[in-house]
Amino acid sequence: MKTLTKLALPAALIALPAMGMAEEGPVPGVNASTDTVFILNSVLFLVGGFLVFWMAAGFAMLEAGLVRSKNVTMQLMKNVALFSLAAIFYYLIGYNLMYPLGTWSVDGILSGVWGPGVLEAVGVSAADADDYSYASTGSDFFFQLMFCATTASIVSGTLAERIKLWPFLIFVIILTGIIYPLQASWKWGGGFLDQAGFLDFAGSTVVHSVGGWAALTGALILGPRIGKYNKDGKTVPMPGSNLTLATLGTFILWLGWFGFNGGSQLAMGTVGDVADVSRIFANTNTAAAGGAIAAMIVSQLMFKKPDLTMTLNGALAGLVSITAEPLTPSLGAATLIGMIGGVIVVFAIPMMDKLKIDDVVGAIPVHLICGIWGTIAVAFTNSDASIGTQLYGVIVVGIFTVVVSGVVWFILNAIMGLRVDEETEINGLDMAELGMEAYPEFTNG
Amino acid sequence: MKTLTKLALPAALIALPAMGMAEEGPVPGVNASTDTVFILNSVLFLVGGFLVFWMAAGFAMLEAGLVRSKNVTMQLMKNVALFSLAAIFYYLIGYNLMYPLGTWSVDGILSGVWGPGVLEAVGVSAADADDYSYASTGSDFFFQLMFCATTASIVSGTLAERIKLWPFLIFVIILTGIIYPLQASWKWGGGFLDQAGFLDFAGSTVVHSVGGWAALTGALILGPRIGKYNKDGKTVPMPGSNLTLATLGTFILWLGWFGFNGGSQLAMGTVGDVADVSRIFANTNTAAAGGAIAAMIVSQLMFKKPDLTMTLNGALAGLVSITAEPLTPSLGAATLIGMIGGVIVVFAIPMMDKLKIDDVVGAIPVHLICGIWGTIAVAFTNSDASIGTQLYGVIVVGIFTVVVSGVVWFILNAIMGLRVDEETEINGLDMAELGMEAYPEFTNG
Amino acid sequence: MKTLTKLALPAALIALPAMGMAEEGPVPGVNASTDTVFILNSVLFLVGGFLVFWMAAGFAMLEAGLVRSKNVTMQLMKNVALFSLAAIFYYLIGYNLMYPLGTWSVDGILSGVWGPGVLEAVGVSAADADDYSYASTGSDFFFQLMFCATTASIVSGTLAERIKLWPFLIFVIILTGIIYPLQASWKWGGGFLDQAGFLDFAGSTVVHSVGGWAALTGALILGPRIGKYNKDGKTVPMPGSNLTLATLGTFILWLGWFGFNGGSQLAMGTVGDVADVSRIFANTNTAAAGGAIAAMIVSQLMFKKPDLTMTLNGALAGLVSITAEPLTPSLGAATLIGMIGGVIVVFAIPMMDKLKIDDVVGAIPVHLICGIWGTIAVAFTNSDASIGTQLYGVIVVGIFTVVVSGVVWFILNAIMGLRVDEETEINGLDMAELGMEAYPEFTNG
Repeated sequence: MKTLTKLALPAALIALPAMGMAEEGPVPGVNASTDTVFILNSVLFLVGGFLVFWMAAGFAMLEAGLVRSKNVTMQLMKNVALFSLAAIFYYLIGYNLMYPLGTWSVDGILSGVWGPGVLEAVGVSAADADDYSYASTGSDFFFQLMFCATTASIVSGTLAERIKLWPFLIFVIILTGIIYPLQASWKWGGGFLDQAGFLDFAGSTVVHSVGGWAALTGALILGPRIGKYNKDGKTVPMPGSNLTLATLGTFILWLGWFGFNGGSQLAMGTVGDVADVSRIFANTNTAAAGGAIAAMIVSQLMFKKPDLTMTLNGALAGLVSITAEPLTPSLGAATLIGMIGGVIVVFAIPMMDKLKIDDVVGAIPVHLICGIWGTIAVAFTNSDASIGTQLYGVIVVGIFTVVVSGVVWFILNAIMGLRVDEETEINGLDMAELGMEAYPEFTNG
Repeated sequence: MKTLTKLALPAALIALPAMGMAEEGPVPGVNASTDTVFILNSVLFLVGGFLVFWMAAGFAMLEAGLVRSKNVTMQLMKNVALFSLAAIFYYLIGYNLMYPLGTWSVDGILSGVWGPGVLEAVGVSAADADDYSYASTGSDFFFQLMFCATTASIVSGTLAERIKLWPFLIFVIILTGIIYPLQASWKWGGGFLDQAGFLDFAGSTVVHSVGGWAALTGALILGPRIGKYNKDGKTVPMPGSNLTLATLGTFILWLGWFGFNGGSQLAMGTVGDVADVSRIFANTNTAAAGGAIAAMIVSQLMFKKPDLTMTLNGALAGLVSITAEPLTPSLGAATLIGMIGGVIVVFAIPMMDKLKIDDVVGAIPVHLICGIWGTIAVAFTNSDASIGTQLYGVIVVGIFTVVVSGVVWFILNAIMGLRVDEETEINGLDMAELGMEAYPEFTNG
Repeated sequence: MKTLTKLALPAALIALPAMGMAEEGPVPGVNASTDTVFILNSVLFLVGGFLVFWMAAGFAMLEAGLVRSKNVTMQLMKNVALFSLAAIFYYLIGYNLMYPLGTWSVDGILSGVWGPGVLEAVGVSAADADDYSYASTGSDFFFQLMFCATTASIVSGTLAERIKLWPFLIFVIILTGIIYPLQASWKWGGGFLDQAGFLDFAGSTVVHSVGGWAALTGALILGPRIGKYNKDGKTVPMPGSNLTLATLGTFILWLGWFGFNGGSQLAMGTVGDVADVSRIFANTNTAAAGGAIAAMIVSQLMFKKPDLTMTLNGALAGLVSITAEPLTPSLGAATLIGMIGGVIVVFAIPMMDKLKIDDVVGAIPVHLICGIWGTIAVAFTNSDASIGTQLYGVIVVGIFTVVVSGVVWFILNAIMGLRVDEETEINGLDMAELGMEAYPEFTNG
């Protein structure tokens, strides 16, 4: 390990005035070669991508831990299926809707050039170079796909324990094939929000608020679980069945978020880029820590006891809050941004219940409300951002997502019915819909 | 995140005609330096290797979730022990049996040059360079070891709930020290299957079918669990005790498979190699997604309810199916290859029961049958492959593994007895063999 | 996959006498460029760092699995909170206490230069270069922080099921903000232990024994759990509630340890460094395997049945044992060092009970005793080490940690009381302290 008089440090490195060079800027022959830059950028997408993939497991565990045991199998099924559908429909439709057109075009879709460079087998870089000039298209596709899938994962938690499997999965297809990529193209495809100066580094708005809006719209149309709000207006607690799973899920998401935010630097083939990725890792971590601690302390103050699920949601809130701008804040500012996210969640979760919006896992406070907070907070540390433009982006994306997902939920409800029948809901979705219990040997009575 | 008018892109990169160069092929001074290539290749092995290591945890969780709670501790013990034994015996015997001899030789073994370059402490590259010229030997050993261990992991699930610990572990020693490396040398050690033109990129045959054949042979000698098939020939369902664990295990395996297939490119120090690794990541992911969705839909059609364990096995089936050739298929073809794997599993699992072969976790359909399917499917997308040669490889490896593992199982059965006594099996292996329950506070009654 | 006649190997690479060059030493224009070295070193810290982060989840799962179900929520809360507090206080105080001062100085603290280069937003390398010349400061901070947090994770398991949340967390703040960084500076900050020739590559002493000493001191002051040792001096077994979680935690820790030990090479921008990192990965893995197998066999011999928790602790013991020197041993020596660790644990765990030191998860044998063993074992494979100096380091760090943490525990006990009241302990900390059960639908009776 590092010592000031580091013995293991290669002598050649000590002799080389490495940073002296870097301080003076690029020196010919010292920069990484163009191939090396291409390779390292691609590696960032691959490593970032598999970390964000891992978040799918995190959502599955978090949600399986926070629903009651009679609905666990269903929640697992939804999470496996939604990721798989996102993978297929982002490939079939979404990726090309998002890139390289920038904005949606009927011609682009009809011409059938779906998944350029990845549909075709390319052994070397020529084809890869066409539309994305500094990393392999395959790595970019892999990375972008994971963001699309994350958006869908957010929705499943809120609507748990009462929505039917198939209409939910049809919604996922539309969300990942159309809704997500369309609005993402406005920012990340170089569309009008990008041109307006809207900033969203890794997707507090583009990913998290979109998932949150879709979940909110669904929750409103679906209504609360039976028995959640009783006649005198009180909220009936329905505690999650397995807090170790919920904690494991949170740790998985925290780990995956290093890929989510760090990978969004989109490059690590230069000294400056890798230094930025490093800052992003450190800021992402400290924001999560700040969110967890803030939620733990505020829950202690408000409820006289620290609340584990609040603390877990606080960590996630910190992560969502820093996602719109994980680079420009100092460590101190990042901690603060995360802490405010953690505080928001402790107040927002009971508020949702007062509004009788039944969000099983707290995804709306975490992903939507903290997504908005994080997007606004960009303006506090990044001088290129203005609060007005940030709000503009939040509102445009919000209206679009609410309207389109509202229409889709409405149509699905009319055609198939979104909600399981009362008996199924009371007995649990697992036996009625899937014929399979998650813990067949364990449940009491 | 990426926009078409990417502002964060380093100006130097935009100015450089990076891909223009790459399109024209290597230009002096632009390729990665030879050292950088060596380093990046080694990094691929290290990252790929730790991802495949993680699959050991995936198998442990999958199997612990699919056995009944009275046998969970034993299943965990087997998984920890088999990985540890594989690590030690692949080092002591297997690695050198597989490399660098190409084919097995008494001389090579007797001369005792086991684990060259890794047994000796080498600080720099000289010794590493001797037998493997483009990456560090240590990283190669680390990576190859994980494949050997995976083969053993496959066996433990099939034989769960009835096989004794110690004979199973002795089999693991022979499998990982001798059977796996011997047949692997025929392909990956440059042996006769390689020279015959047999193609198996990451081991649908070399790893998965070998594990599957060994499991099948063991299952036939061991016989089904007590009560699994009743007197009128019906199969009695014995549902897994914990589907969240099974789902977690599947997600872990899915994640690890990016290392399994991507790492098998064996190089990422050139633009072409990293583009290939990227394609492999994307194809591996879409094959898993295709397998999961296909199994979910087919199980809905066949059983009127979508089946979670089928869906999980469908994802794994998709992964095994794409493993023999994750590079040449387009995304569409990869999805299709995975989907066919998913369909196979839904039909093969009940078929195994009709044949009264009791495979506790479905490992034979997933790893053996889809391993064969994936090996044949190489011929559909890779023009260097012929179905005849692929079948030749499948059959040769199959006969070898069945005969040798059959003899080993037979001898172990004769000497030690493979199977626990009836009372132990009925009461569960955990208390009788280990004196320890996995969930002492939870089991009913 | 690799064959001796590797067809997929890029022709350019075969033609290049890559290793011939490397054998002769650095050749101009063939070494990685200085920028590439900087980038690759930073990448090692980032990947190593996220792997060590993942160990926080490993400890959480291990401990949640080894406590009784009535205390699981509390154990999860402690693990999430301790990591978060470590992240914040290592940033606020610890990192600068450890670097760049080398040894502690009032001036350095008072001048307030806490977190240089990471507190400030730096886009490129200039600021990074100031105090750490060959990797980005952000990546270094991220990596170092995870080691600090690991130290705190070790403490929580030993003291489980009886210590109050808030005093424990205050101790964590002092441990991670002051105790850990202060003594770490003696070795890794270039302080007097480093200058004395004390060797501790990745922290058998600096991390693991410090956590172990703090845990031991706490356990002595806190006393054993009610009912653990009955009146006739016998130990009452209190089996862990969930062995799948304990096994999952062990696999997570094993995976994370590749980052822990491999990242401690601190560089992978040269052929020699990446070959060393590779050796470290292989040695770390084989030591864990050796520890697991040894503990399994010894527990079979001693207790007539192989013991899963012993086997898991054996793997961890192997990992701790190899941590002080994962580079110089051959694979065989590394296996042996790990095996001795595994044997130690099987004897030390019952010994702790004879001494009536109640260590809920076995962290003192694993991290303290094997940490000492590993530190001494450096002398067997690294000629730069002497047993005398190694013992000197062990003792100095031990005395310091015991005295300071003893004072802190004592003060906390006097002011707030460390221990929950008897009723709370008997009923479980979860309901009394947190009002929340981990498995509300599952517990018997």
